[in-house]
Amino acid sequence: MTQILRLRQRILFGKAIAIGPGKAELLQHIAELGSISAAARQMGMSYRRAWLLVDTMNQCFAAPLVEAAPGGSGGGGARITAEGEKVLALYRRIEEQSRAAVHQEMAELEGMLAETPPANPH
Amino acid sequence: MTQILRLRQRILFGKAIAIGPGKAELLQHIAELGSISAAARQMGMSYRRAWLLVDTMNQCFAAPLVEAAPGGSGGGGARITAEGEKVLALYRRIEEQSRAAVHQEMAELEGMLAETPPANPH
Repeated sequence: MTQILRLRQRILFGKAIAIGPGKAELLQHIAELGSISAAARQMGMSYRRAWLLVDTMNQCFAAPLVEAAPGGSGGGGARITAEGEKVLALYRRIEEQSRAAVHQEMAELEGMLAETPPANPH
Repeated sequence: MTQILRLRQRILFGKAIAIGPGKAELLQHIAELGSISAAARQMGMSYRRAWLLVDTMNQCFAAPLVEAAPGGSGGGGARITAEGEKVLALYRRIEEQSRAAVHQEMAELEGMLAETPPANPH
């Protein structure tokens, strides 16, 4: 069966989302593209917003997850650190393992759904 | 050890959060207080906001989770339906089981945290 409901995990440290679906996607794009601005563009997000999300992640952890990449004449390069790779990998495992653990409950909820989701949800 | 990181689950149906931490808390307060406005007050939320959240939940599922309670001269009473109780119970199980499944990963993330969370997170 197609997946109807999607389980999304946010991990909160105080009031901050230390890591969640959006920040994980951003980390992954930065790792692939080597640039915060390119990652932001890929996600249809402003550079400022992406920078603020990176800054929040960096503040949540003892070591930065993303750092400026030296070199490159244009500047603006960024790379994911070993800590960033580790946080991303742990988050992906958290997603997978929690989804596996609630398969039955999600199927029960899916059996109770309306035919279509609301158009203007709150 | 005290819990430092908190795992929050949202369950999305299309663009809607069918059930998540805030809606589950609202359902629970409505069940206890028999009124959307009393539940809203308890959560420091406007009646309008609580009503919109209830309306979204009701639209997500084939049967309403909350319905108007007849009787009561002042009107405005509400009660959680059998379907509402079931969705709330399933969500609580989803919370518990997914937390249990990612205990090790959460502990690893906690070991990587900064001393304090950021004051103005994004």
